[in-house]
Amino acid sequence: MPGVWKAIAGKPESYDLLKAAAVSPNKLALTALPKAGFPFMPSDISAKIAGSKTFLRFGLHKAEQLYGFGLNFQTVNQRGRILYLHVDHYGGSDNGRTHAPVPFYVSSKGYGVFINTARYITVYAGTGVRKESKDAPSEQNRNTDKDWNAQPYSDAVEILVPSSGVEIYIFGGPTALDAVQRFNLFNGGGCLPPRWGLGFTQRVRSLSTDKEVEQEADEFSSKGYPLDFIGLEPGWQTRSYPCTYQWDSTRFPQPARFIGDMLERGIKLNLWINPYVSKHAPFYKSILPYTASHKVWNGVIPDLTLPPARKLFFGQLNKDQVEPGVSGYKIDEVDGYDNWLWPDVATFPGGVSAEQIRQTYGLLCQKYSTQIFYNKNKRTYGLVRGSNAGGVSFPYVIYNDYYKHEDFITALINSGFCGVLWTPEVRESATAAEWLRRMQTVVFSPMAMINAWSSGTKPWTYPEVAEQVKELALLRMQMMPYWYTAFARYHFEGIPPFRAVNLEEGFSEINFKDKSGNVNQDGPYPVAMLKDIKDEYMAGDYLLVAPLFGNDSSRNVILPKGNWYDFYTGAYAGNGEIITVSPGLDKIPVFVKDGAIIPMQPPMLHAPKPGEKTDIQFRHYGEKESSYKFYDDDGESFDYEKGVYSWRLVTMKKNKTEWVGTISEPEKDKPNTIGKVTWKQMGE
Amino acid sequence: MPGVWKAIAGKPESYDLLKAAAVSPNKLALTALPKAGFPFMPSDISAKIAGSKTFLRFGLHKAEQLYGFGLNFQTVNQRGRILYLHVDHYGGSDNGRTHAPVPFYVSSKGYGVFINTARYITVYAGTGVRKESKDAPSEQNRNTDKDWNAQPYSDAVEILVPSSGVEIYIFGGPTALDAVQRFNLFNGGGCLPPRWGLGFTQRVRSLSTDKEVEQEADEFSSKGYPLDFIGLEPGWQTRSYPCTYQWDSTRFPQPARFIGDMLERGIKLNLWINPYVSKHAPFYKSILPYTASHKVWNGVIPDLTLPPARKLFFGQLNKDQVEPGVSGYKIDEVDGYDNWLWPDVATFPGGVSAEQIRQTYGLLCQKYSTQIFYNKNKRTYGLVRGSNAGGVSFPYVIYNDYYKHEDFITALINSGFCGVLWTPEVRESATAAEWLRRMQTVVFSPMAMINAWSSGTKPWTYPEVAEQVKELALLRMQMMPYWYTAFARYHFEGIPPFRAVNLEEGFSEINFKDKSGNVNQDGPYPVAMLKDIKDEYMAGDYLLVAPLFGNDSSRNVILPKGNWYDFYTGAYAGNGEIITVSPGLDKIPVFVKDGAIIPMQPPMLHAPKPGEKTDIQFRHYGEKESSYKFYDDDGESFDYEKGVYSWRLVTMKKNKTEWVGTISEPEKDKPNTIGKVTWKQMGE
Repeated sequence: MPGVWKAIAGKPESYDLLKAAAVSPNKLALTALPKAGFPFMPSDISAKIAGSKTFLRFGLHKAEQLYGFGLNFQTVNQRGRILYLHVDHYGGSDNGRTHAPVPFYVSSKGYGVFINTARYITVYAGTGVRKESKDAPSEQNRNTDKDWNAQPYSDAVEILVPSSGVEIYIFGGPTALDAVQRFNLFNGGGCLPPRWGLGFTQRVRSLSTDKEVEQEADEFSSKGYPLDFIGLEPGWQTRSYPCTYQWDSTRFPQPARFIGDMLERGIKLNLWINPYVSKHAPFYKSILPYTASHKVWNGVIPDLTLPPARKLFFGQLNKDQVEPGVSGYKIDEVDGYDNWLWPDVATFPGGVSAEQIRQTYGLLCQKYSTQIFYNKNKRTYGLVRGSNAGGVSFPYVIYNDYYKHEDFITALINSGFCGVLWTPEVRESATAAEWLRRMQTVVFSPMAMINAWSSGTKPWTYPEVAEQVKELALLRMQMMPYWYTAFARYHFEGIPPFRAVNLEEGFSEINFKDKSGNVNQDGPYPVAMLKDIKDEYMAGDYLLVAPLFGNDSSRNVILPKGNWYDFYTGAYAGNGEIITVSPGLDKIPVFVKDGAIIPMQPPMLHAPKPGEKTDIQFRHYGEKESSYKFYDDDGESFDYEKGVYSWRLVTMKKNKTEWVGTISEPEKDKPNTIGKVTWKQMGE
Repeated sequence: MPGVWKAIAGKPESYDLLKAAAVSPNKLALTALPKAGFPFMPSDISAKIAGSKTFLRFGLHKAEQLYGFGLNFQTVNQRGRILYLHVDHYGGSDNGRTHAPVPFYVSSKGYGVFINTARYITVYAGTGVRKESKDAPSEQNRNTDKDWNAQPYSDAVEILVPSSGVEIYIFGGPTALDAVQRFNLFNGGGCLPPRWGLGFTQRVRSLSTDKEVEQEADEFSSKGYPLDFIGLEPGWQTRSYPCTYQWDSTRFPQPARFIGDMLERGIKLNLWINPYVSKHAPFYKSILPYTASHKVWNGVIPDLTLPPARKLFFGQLNKDQVEPGVSGYKIDEVDGYDNWLWPDVATFPGGVSAEQIRQTYGLLCQKYSTQIFYNKNKRTYGLVRGSNAGGVSFPYVIYNDYYKHEDFITALINSGFCGVLWTPEVRESATAAEWLRRMQTVVFSPMAMINAWSSGTKPWTYPEVAEQVKELALLRMQMMPYWYTAFARYHFEGIPPFRAVNLEEGFSEINFKDKSGNVNQDGPYPVAMLKDIKDEYMAGDYLLVAPLFGNDSSRNVILPKGNWYDFYTGAYAGNGEIITVSPGLDKIPVFVKDGAIIPMQPPMLHAPKPGEKTDIQFRHYGEKESSYKFYDDDGESFDYEKGVYSWRLVTMKKNKTEWVGTISEPEKDKPNTIGKVTWKQMGE
């Protein structure tokens, strides 16, 4: 593939992450990326095999930063860290155990490295000092040297893969974003959710009845809060932990009718499951030969590498739920923690080791549940707790039980480095202010989820912020065309819809000099080199989001080089500098790139249905004449794979003092969801 | 060996823990233990090899508790835990990463299991539920069952060893203590420190000069605080981190004279080192070919599996320090953490993997440093941060930087399950009360260490408790014959001098019924089954120590079955019950078994010198006529290995109302350190 180099060390294993995901690269899109040179000198890479293990080394330069190695929650730059990549719930420290411990890293120098293994690997991300290093630091004397350093400079990433061989992929740049795009496109491109997936979702308490769910939907509607899908927790089934995957007839006597009634309300349904099968499941006896040696909560574990197991398991979901109209799943407990899941001594009838199944179980669940919907030419958008490399194109968003708002933002940033999506969901809050602050980041995220089934909190629970929450939720709906296009670029071009500002053009180029020409140690780039930028992120093409937390009323924002404008007013905000903002409780600080064109639709309670037209206002920010590609398709099917989509070219030019917008004609035989078009130059 | 069964699964590796330690079992002592039957049914054990890994399974019964798996700090019963045994600094959770992750466990049912591997192994200590378990728990429905359990009952310990084979040793009982004794004797028996090792030690600040060290010693002496050895921190050397192992001539212009002057004061010297060699070390160039691929703090890492590396490294210690009279070492940083030590991708010229070297480096340092002293027929007693199975006989005590007083007690308890010694050293305290409380446990521990070189705290720093601290320190000295005999039993019989009350006869036999015949849910045994007993421990043959922490003024103490008496007064305290004690700030609660005979010498500032006689008062507690074996030898040499020691039989009998003590005659040609003998019936 263009700009992608594959190397093989020793004898790779027959099962790995790419084999589990089984997705084809998007070669056409890869070809469209800028040309890239191979990023290493031959002496900078080494691989050797010893004692059934593979030792890898990749050189590093001074001041190089490393991003990725999975969904970390507290750090962005991983250089200097040791990580043991292991699918697990996030336990509070960035040690490699996380929901998506993707063995891929991106360098600030503009390349990526991916180790295609489903083993637990140990990564020394620039920690070891080799005796033979050409760049070895000099010895210090701790007795007397004040500059003695507990962790001397290291010139390499070293990785221990516990197998006698492994496939390695190097992704070229020239920029770090190019390398990320290549990784994503190599994995089939990002997922394109249905339009409704980008609306609001709410989850209801486990033992809810059909009537209660309907009432919940009606309450959202009557109060004027948008809602696109509702999630049912374990109690929709007869039994859970382990599960039967059958509607409980006392709570849901007529599932098909219920699903239909909800769809008529404009509400899709998402069902919680975990993949551990009760002996009361209808397919229990048939699946038993295809299950692991060990059990989870006394349920059997299907070996999803085996076609008969998949047919039985996903066949039940299809027949009982998807066929009558259920729109997606929340796949729980495919991550950890160790005391709950199968031990590494478990065996699976397909012969893949317990460790490798653990690293890929979330992938397998995503892949084959998506397949049910794919077979019906119907998109889904669900939740999952465990993923890995290879899952870029699967339409699932990762969630967990860790709940630190600040760290949710860091996870959102890191999700963009490793080809996964992450939701900073809202569950409950200590104060109305916190509820609102959390809701603000929910609105600027891949899935706008209120996951308050346990606490019972509703969007309107805090009367003092209920109106602001509604306004925010409606802002999310107004921005749906912007989000949808951002996801289309994820799919077709590999650009993560939510990502680090470090990937922004103009970020690392900010020079050290302030306006007076002095070296500015407080400038964004020195700051980024000295500490992690982990509390602001890019959303879609143009937006820089800088959330506030808890009861904070102001914060610093690092603006990369280029003019930036206030999202709400269009006022100039800064350029390549650190600004302090105090936007009040109602607003989350959001900044827009010069020349941004942002499509907005009217506030709606549900995503537009296929064929439904909505008016679009194109907002233009700043002084730059610019163009924008607006993505359009039917919003629900996979017909876009057959070319049934269009990119409408939008331009904004200045005619003397007036801004004039144009949009290309709709393409023939392609869906066109744009109603009336209006234009707005922000700040005027 | 009697009561020890060895099994071999697959092809064990050529390097393992026992090979690293290279110690011979004490067959004679093993033979003297009670006969033991093999503790498992054949179907309860299984081993299989797959994919270069060994999967082990050992059955468990209901209500069986598991102890051991190394030096844990927060839990005693390990059943239900998952541990990844890895030599490391203790990081605050009992996950297997600790200073001595000994792969040995003891069951409350009276047997032990040891996995002889220097690999990182994963232990599922009763967590996995197998589909084919005969004892499988029944499925529950979380939707509605209130007794749904996140961790269902497991009937096995399962262990993953990442190698194609491994040696397994099973140690018979019949009691858990018997199994521990067998493990210890199999590893050569516990260490026997020199008498001075059981006195007080103080460490001084890193850049101290010889004069300052002498002043420090004189200050202890003039203030009347006992002191037997002083530790010098890194600055005794010309350079440290990495080290030169050469006296710094500006601070120590005449090392031999200084050592001699200190010895004349009755003070031995202990020197801090870590094993990472500076290029300024005199043997640097010679040792270079025998060092690892990676460096630590820019120092090279000797491959201590290679005789030339050992000769150079320990030869320097011998010539420069031991020969002039240094008495021991503090061996630092042979534990972790990962960012400092060599990565697992490092290679060692001897061909042993980095992982296996990591697991055994502390063992190797202990073994070959002890050898220097052994060659001079002179005992040593030092400090080390990393150890493992096989090191039972090495005269080193583990310390670390974790400093929670409560958890230090738990570590002390766990040390007794895994053949290591642990010191609950005192460094600094927030309050005078805490200083005194910490000093109280120091006095009832294997090494009475004030490790306050960094804080500069002295035993007398808090004037309000200075006298109490002195009294405590002198109590430690008075009890020296008791401690010395306890260590002799560790050496000759394998009984840990400090250990869990769970190993006490009469502990698990306590029945559930209270005095009225009702089932007593608050009784010691039910409590022990429900929660860990991790705040009280046995010290020597007879003492149950129940420390108080911080500003606490009272606590509960679980007394096993049998009559127990107050250590200070001899008053009856209880029998098979939970008592509450409030002994005041001056006293640490200590209880004595019925029939205990405790030898006490006069308070002294230094341990008796070889040949020096001390008066002994034998204290007798309770109503039981009893006997006691008093151990005696020269206290400093290894002549005891040639039989130059004696066990003097001491008895206490009641003659009508009067207690009469007898002691056997000293053996001919054996050292006799007993001066005048007196007797005291406590409580009278």
